[in-house]
Amino acid sequence: MPRYPDYSPAVAGIPGSVYSALAHRIETFEGEVYPLHVGDTWLEPPEGCRMEDLATAAYPGLHRYAPPHGLPALVEAVAAQVAARTGVPTEPRDVLMATGATGALGAVAGALLAPGDEVLILAPHWPLIAGIVRSFHATPVAVPYLGEVNDPEGALEAVAARRTPATVALYLSTPNNPTGRVIPRDQLESLAEWARGEGLWLIADEVYEDYCYRGEHAYLRALAPERTFAAYSFSKAFGMAGNRIGYAVGPAAAMDQVRKVSTHTFYSAPTAGQVAALRLFDGRGEPWLAATRERYRELGAAAARRLGLPEPDGSTFLFLDVADHLDDRGLFGFLEDCVERGLFLAPGPSFGPYPTHVRLCFTAAEPAVVARGVEVLAGMLGRSPP
Amino acid sequence: MPRYPDYSPAVAGIPGSVYSALAHRIETFEGEVYPLHVGDTWLEPPEGCRMEDLATAAYPGLHRYAPPHGLPALVEAVAAQVAARTGVPTEPRDVLMATGATGALGAVAGALLAPGDEVLILAPHWPLIAGIVRSFHATPVAVPYLGEVNDPEGALEAVAARRTPATVALYLSTPNNPTGRVIPRDQLESLAEWARGEGLWLIADEVYEDYCYRGEHAYLRALAPERTFAAYSFSKAFGMAGNRIGYAVGPAAAMDQVRKVSTHTFYSAPTAGQVAALRLFDGRGEPWLAATRERYRELGAAAARRLGLPEPDGSTFLFLDVADHLDDRGLFGFLEDCVERGLFLAPGPSFGPYPTHVRLCFTAAEPAVVARGVEVLAGMLGRSPP
Repeated sequence: MPRYPDYSPAVAGIPGSVYSALAHRIETFEGEVYPLHVGDTWLEPPEGCRMEDLATAAYPGLHRYAPPHGLPALVEAVAAQVAARTGVPTEPRDVLMATGATGALGAVAGALLAPGDEVLILAPHWPLIAGIVRSFHATPVAVPYLGEVNDPEGALEAVAARRTPATVALYLSTPNNPTGRVIPRDQLESLAEWARGEGLWLIADEVYEDYCYRGEHAYLRALAPERTFAAYSFSKAFGMAGNRIGYAVGPAAAMDQVRKVSTHTFYSAPTAGQVAALRLFDGRGEPWLAATRERYRELGAAAARRLGLPEPDGSTFLFLDVADHLDDRGLFGFLEDCVERGLFLAPGPSFGPYPTHVRLCFTAAEPAVVARGVEVLAGMLGRSPP
Repeated sequence: MPRYPDYSPAVAGIPGSVYSALAHRIETFEGEVYPLHVGDTWLEPPEGCRMEDLATAAYPGLHRYAPPHGLPALVEAVAAQVAARTGVPTEPRDVLMATGATGALGAVAGALLAPGDEVLILAPHWPLIAGIVRSFHATPVAVPYLGEVNDPEGALEAVAARRTPATVALYLSTPNNPTGRVIPRDQLESLAEWARGEGLWLIADEVYEDYCYRGEHAYLRALAPERTFAAYSFSKAFGMAGNRIGYAVGPAAAMDQVRKVSTHTFYSAPTAGQVAALRLFDGRGEPWLAATRERYRELGAAAARRLGLPEPDGSTFLFLDVADHLDDRGLFGFLEDCVERGLFLAPGPSFGPYPTHVRLCFTAAEPAVVARGVEVLAGMLGRSPP
């Protein structure tokens, strides 16, 4: 058992960021910087939903605790929206407002996982999910999937190959961070049916639900409402990542367990951020979203064209294999060469077993800055000038 | 191993709030309500430190992610303040900005604890610490202490009696929630020396450091900096509980482990709340604090006098044994009787093995409301009218 000077072995086993040695060079870099390694947006939130719009006089209690469950009006608005979008009856008790989708997924993991449990994770995957699983003493098991599986039968083969007696849950993100792909409905149906047969929980990270550019975003919870937790966020959808407001939706009795963990890891989601989110439902959110979706679609398509990649189906990312451009310094050398040109990209190993990939976020900076950063990358990949 | 429809046994073992059945009656109660069960303040934050004061134009990135470690300027300001107050050299790497002290202590617990570990907790204790320990699959062990231990020798006897081979850490809160007592320096010295000899970590919850009304708040980290984590908060000190900004301070290498857990449970503390906290360091915080400390001291003293209790030494709470006023319905019946009069109090069992106690927060509502609530309680306890 750990005691001074030892730590939790599970947490000690979470790798530190190999990239931090590079990322801090942003602050000292001379010349224009292209910080495309972060998943964020350059856009401010819609007018009326910014901190300066939240008058203390209009919102008594603005700086006091919100209920740990969430601001009642926001919980109700979200439950109604989820019900309308998914077709699944959704009550306030099915919802938890959280410190971003990270807080939501952390609380879900804490509620479900015991030491020794394994969680199947469709890969490439959101970087934090592996560490979330480890933080609660369970083991993440990457399932190579996006870009490799093309049909429902392949989906079953992929998950069955990694399932063990210790498997308790399956996690997936769609629209996917980092690949920009959307998992088709028929594959989700196949996975949901398999999970039901195997007695597993399902966790769907759908924070990019509003950023699907072609095809359809299918909701996993609609296919297995009794066992699915879904995570959403105002962060990416509305330029509010710093507000730390996301939410989890799931079966009410299970959400009671999830709320125990959220109460003990962040207590309540920030009050002002919840009020800002609530103001989106006053007709401010939808027009912003419609305009932004079209803008992101164009930005993603332009970046993909320049880099010779397929256009993304959703999310705000491109995921590239740069194996042909590595020398004996490997991926870290390539990333160093990028940094010397002011370009910051996220390293493939953060997303699973992808030692020669990089991720680029095409909304992380002003479009002109992103375009120049993409141009730097295109040059390094030997793409001829446009 | 848990799988659908089972949960983490550790989390399933966290008791739900026995009080929630009563607390929700606040919303439907007809007549004046005295919500003295919550630990909060009725005061708004200092002018200049409210959400409406945070102009997007003045703070580029106000709605974007802060670095997971914390806003650099705030981390530096906090490190300098901690160094000045404790005399312990404190660098930015020793600090983590968190979603309140809850987020800070959750991340510390996650970094330290493995399944089967035990944590000694000086009781009565802050209600959430037991569930925090359980959320990371370890076991909280209450050590009856405040109100029972009077000298350094007694301190050693109290902790030694509950220490087992599984003990890995000792947690204490001073100024104490819920008792309003401050643990004297000589007892802390004794506990620190004991922890060093036993090879244990120390966790000091000092969120009421600014609210010590008599005697001295001694900093545990000054006595054992190599093994002590301390948690602080802007929530209670400055009327900002809803902003969810607190911080942890500890040994740098250990804080690297703590940051792994915070990244995976809430990612980063809310940006606007950190900017608001930073503005306190522009000369706005100290005068507010000096005035508020005196005001809280008077409120605590007045409530204590009316209830026939010793005045609190610190914090914003009184903790009363109401054993002589219980009928065969026990404590819950007494709390029900309070609720019927509009008075909401926190039940003793939330704070450890205290089946006949209640906690009252004397800053949870406007002073006149608190005074009327105290009057209700005084009447129930048979105190003659003033």
